[in-house]
Amino acid sequence: MSGIIELRLDDLGERGIQEHVLRPRYGGTEGFGDDSALLAALSTPSELVATTDSCPTPVVVNFLGEPDLYHAGWLLATINLSDLAATGAEPLGLVAAYTLPKATTVREFERLLDGVDDCCVEHGTKIAGGDTRDGETVQLTATAIGRCAPGRRLRRSGACAGDRLLLVGSPGYLWAAALLAAGHATLPEAAREEVRRRACRPMAQLRAGQVMAATGLGQAAMDVSDGLFATVRALCETNGLGAAITGDYELDQPVAEVARQSGLHPFDLAETWGDWGLVIVTRAEDVDLAMKALQTEGIVAQEIGVLTADPRIVMGAGGRPWNGIAQERFSNSSWHGGDLADLITAVLGTPRS
Amino acid sequence: MSGIIELRLDDLGERGIQEHVLRPRYGGTEGFGDDSALLAALSTPSELVATTDSCPTPVVVNFLGEPDLYHAGWLLATINLSDLAATGAEPLGLVAAYTLPKATTVREFERLLDGVDDCCVEHGTKIAGGDTRDGETVQLTATAIGRCAPGRRLRRSGACAGDRLLLVGSPGYLWAAALLAAGHATLPEAAREEVRRRACRPMAQLRAGQVMAATGLGQAAMDVSDGLFATVRALCETNGLGAAITGDYELDQPVAEVARQSGLHPFDLAETWGDWGLVIVTRAEDVDLAMKALQTEGIVAQEIGVLTADPRIVMGAGGRPWNGIAQERFSNSSWHGGDLADLITAVLGTPRS
Repeated sequence: MSGIIELRLDDLGERGIQEHVLRPRYGGTEGFGDDSALLAALSTPSELVATTDSCPTPVVVNFLGEPDLYHAGWLLATINLSDLAATGAEPLGLVAAYTLPKATTVREFERLLDGVDDCCVEHGTKIAGGDTRDGETVQLTATAIGRCAPGRRLRRSGACAGDRLLLVGSPGYLWAAALLAAGHATLPEAAREEVRRRACRPMAQLRAGQVMAATGLGQAAMDVSDGLFATVRALCETNGLGAAITGDYELDQPVAEVARQSGLHPFDLAETWGDWGLVIVTRAEDVDLAMKALQTEGIVAQEIGVLTADPRIVMGAGGRPWNGIAQERFSNSSWHGGDLADLITAVLGTPRS
Repeated sequence: MSGIIELRLDDLGERGIQEHVLRPRYGGTEGFGDDSALLAALSTPSELVATTDSCPTPVVVNFLGEPDLYHAGWLLATINLSDLAATGAEPLGLVAAYTLPKATTVREFERLLDGVDDCCVEHGTKIAGGDTRDGETVQLTATAIGRCAPGRRLRRSGACAGDRLLLVGSPGYLWAAALLAAGHATLPEAAREEVRRRACRPMAQLRAGQVMAATGLGQAAMDVSDGLFATVRALCETNGLGAAITGDYELDQPVAEVARQSGLHPFDLAETWGDWGLVIVTRAEDVDLAMKALQTEGIVAQEIGVLTADPRIVMGAGGRPWNGIAQERFSNSSWHGGDLADLITAVLGTPRS
């Protein structure tokens, strides 16, 4: 392998890539080399779900010394698994389609595959198959397939006025890492490293979705892929409701400290995107049970507000309109990399530090 | 719709696209708008299979007056369904990930979706969900998911020396259309139109795969995505065998006529790629039964050769080595469009007409 690692993919060709890169890694997977991959043998009644997403340029490449496809690989798996998490599904596997320039080195390709595979392992799933082809620009697309118990699938719909909104996961790590990298805050090395690690290795909230689906405590769910406001707004629109958000959020300690030093309110970081949290809707009377069920699994969650018959989305005791973070594709807020300072301003406004 | 059709996708934005393009088309699909799409409710034991492929630039855009994403959409669905066909699976649905420049018009996007949807309908399946994002270049990726009855899944492995190779489908239409467009042959208008139609609307051999899997008459299978030689070679390598190919093939009449006028042997067109045929391996004693089973379904197939213990791949009575068409990615034969005449030469050599 030591010699091959320095070669370009077009030195190997498709057949060489198959034999020298993919077979050593995936050759033990049943169905390896076949036209279609084997996902699973299912014997119990199931609702099958699938989701597909292409990977944007990870924000973290802005903080890191050199571009490294490991981060894109990890993110590719997470973003797809996060969509499965929102349904409460158990993942059966992923298939991945990679378009890479011919000049990509074997080392770079291996880093991409390491990122995808490590992320799948951390989430208890696997790459079942895929496709690699050459093209002018890097384009990474994956599809995650999962199963739900019949009648237990969580959807965006199913919420009623009075239902509570729980935010599952620990938000703010990605943008705290960005603020640290841009010099808006400083932390002791260990804390800084932990923030950076969490930013680079976001996890999908699969177990939280599964618990809320299995117990019936979740009424609806959606992941936070474009910002918390975009998520709450979509849940409101789907259900013909509004929401009253507290605007309070207790961030993890190092993230809270970055917010403080950067002159930001904790909620400014809580409502960002990139940490792949899940918003779960529960009946008001089920909140305590739901929080307990999540805690039992070691999953952190906070109540952030209530759905209302009034269709407005408001925040705080005064009920002022909330127009929060909502990244949107085919618009100016569609993320495609760029300068870190500009990006921080676009997402968080101008930090005061 | 008449006003919207002329707009660009970035005039609408992601939310406008969802409401004005996707909801009218897919809003009736259960799970529309959810983070994950519902593929199917399964109640019988199943082996689930999945395949993912990105769409190359369709060769047919070289013959057509203007670029039209309909053809790419059709091809995107066919190439993925063809991989399912090789396993004998019943398709449960597809998910699609589209990356499109912001300047793409709604009309162009609708044509893409029309192509995908029409192709899915023709194959008895559907788009269950997907993702659309903006990017610098068009990149179309789909994933097809299917089910096989347990133990009936066809694979590339499973073949023995003495087994016969059946080529299912009618090869040569794509490259006959190319030869007609380049002036190497002429046909009466109706025949020319039929060749062009078949070239633009290739079908995956789903039913053939299903019949061969269900009856147990198929021992192994693989689709013809990169040329017949590439397919036979892969089947040989997987099974540790060689093959003796007859080199004879009876093309459909208009394709045969194009071959004749272009100074090509019928097999020169039979071994091309782009028609999404299927090579099915059957035991020698099952050939007649298999051919009859396919005929009963109205599926055309011809026996093209035999697998051998001798690992060489040879052709004709003299047993000369066969080095046929084998498009390979990350090599010079990786297809990315270009001049039609050059492409014909690359695939077919220099026609004598």
